[in-house]
Amino acid sequence: MEYISSAKNEHIKAAKKLTVKKYQKQAGAYLLEGWHLVEEAINAGITPKRIYATNKYLAERLLKPLYEITTEISDDVAKHLAETETPQGIFAILPLEEEKLDAPLAGQYLLLDQIQDPGNVGTLVRTADAAGIKTVVFGGGTADAHNPKVLRAMQGSQFHVKIVATPLPTLVKKLQQAGIPVYGSELNANAKPYRDVAPSDQFALIVGNEGNGMAKELLNVTDANLYIPIKGRAESLNVAIAGAVIMFHLTA
Amino acid sequence: MEYISSAKNEHIKAAKKLTVKKYQKQAGAYLLEGWHLVEEAINAGITPKRIYATNKYLAERLLKPLYEITTEISDDVAKHLAETETPQGIFAILPLEEEKLDAPLAGQYLLLDQIQDPGNVGTLVRTADAAGIKTVVFGGGTADAHNPKVLRAMQGSQFHVKIVATPLPTLVKKLQQAGIPVYGSELNANAKPYRDVAPSDQFALIVGNEGNGMAKELLNVTDANLYIPIKGRAESLNVAIAGAVIMFHLTA
Repeated sequence: MEYISSAKNEHIKAAKKLTVKKYQKQAGAYLLEGWHLVEEAINAGITPKRIYATNKYLAERLLKPLYEITTEISDDVAKHLAETETPQGIFAILPLEEEKLDAPLAGQYLLLDQIQDPGNVGTLVRTADAAGIKTVVFGGGTADAHNPKVLRAMQGSQFHVKIVATPLPTLVKKLQQAGIPVYGSELNANAKPYRDVAPSDQFALIVGNEGNGMAKELLNVTDANLYIPIKGRAESLNVAIAGAVIMFHLTA
Repeated sequence: MEYISSAKNEHIKAAKKLTVKKYQKQAGAYLLEGWHLVEEAINAGITPKRIYATNKYLAERLLKPLYEITTEISDDVAKHLAETETPQGIFAILPLEEEKLDAPLAGQYLLLDQIQDPGNVGTLVRTADAAGIKTVVFGGGTADAHNPKVLRAMQGSQFHVKIVATPLPTLVKKLQQAGIPVYGSELNANAKPYRDVAPSDQFALIVGNEGNGMAKELLNVTDANLYIPIKGRAESLNVAIAGAVIMFHLTA
């Protein structure tokens, strides 16, 4: 097995670039960090293009059949590749595959409208997974699904739910044509308390930008806008929290 | 009005230290950053010991009665004091007041058991506020309420709910003696789905450490342990998300 001890190695430099969207697109690949996530990827049937692992991981049963594509790295190299402060020392380069929506449209959807914070985006995907929602759509202005912070916050849920990037206005029309009700989540004069809508096997929930909320053009076409009644004096909820409360209600 | 243009000024050095627990305790004061939060503090009737503000804020109506305790600072000084990347340019030194629990114990409580991530701690306080819970108790091992990241994530909810730091094992006994049911939130053999417990005006909900969950000594004495049924394949939920879903159910 090859061994790389220098962060200046060309392969390592190339791997590090695969944390950045521009280079991910060019190479059709992205870098994933951490044992748990790499394990989830392999268990999901994804074949990594390459694995970089410190000595600590080489004895793992799951890695043994992948020795041909595995390179051992030093702790220093692991530290260089890592986005976390205490790197675990295992990384995989995975193919960047664009997923498409299943046809015909059916079931439960979470739609992200300009959600900018990577932690919020990742947490929303993880929560959708836990709530049993099978598809999460990344609309324009939403943090990229392969951003390292998004990957970390998703905690592997990207391997359980379908993640699709597509403009929301067109999708919302198609969902409605397919008879799937589309709910916004914003407080306005016409909004109703989220508990007034019954749980259902079919819906699409849109959550909007942290500061500005949902795009007006979406808000105007939803079947209903839901809000969470605030009992105390907080002015609002974090978007991932609000999304979670509504998702767990609609999927109950 | 005094004007400070250098980050090396002694007052500025002293103010910066008030973001650190040790110095906060020594001085009996902490530094709060951002217009919205300073506004909430003043509106809550708290008199700052001092305000540092860039020129931009001096015309604010709310600040005018406080000119005697206000010092103008340069943008450079604001950048030095700030924890955020894009500082707003206003800071207040506020008295560090330790709050005590109301007696007799009554109502709804959120108890934080060793919650380490400042973002989670702050978000849980903000969410408790929104759900109408009036008291949040910081148990041992929980990030400090005056940590700058906690302050930011609370979004001013610290001025709406009572925040008390006290060991949880003793408090849990007292709550139970007062007839208030104490719920844990962890999946174990005896746990029940959170929806099996009816909303109530009186309860205490404990949420536990991100990685290790609740302390065993607490888990063993709760009246019930609640869990959120996972429908998809996510292994768990973020602690702030789980806390939010259960809080909004129990306070519905």
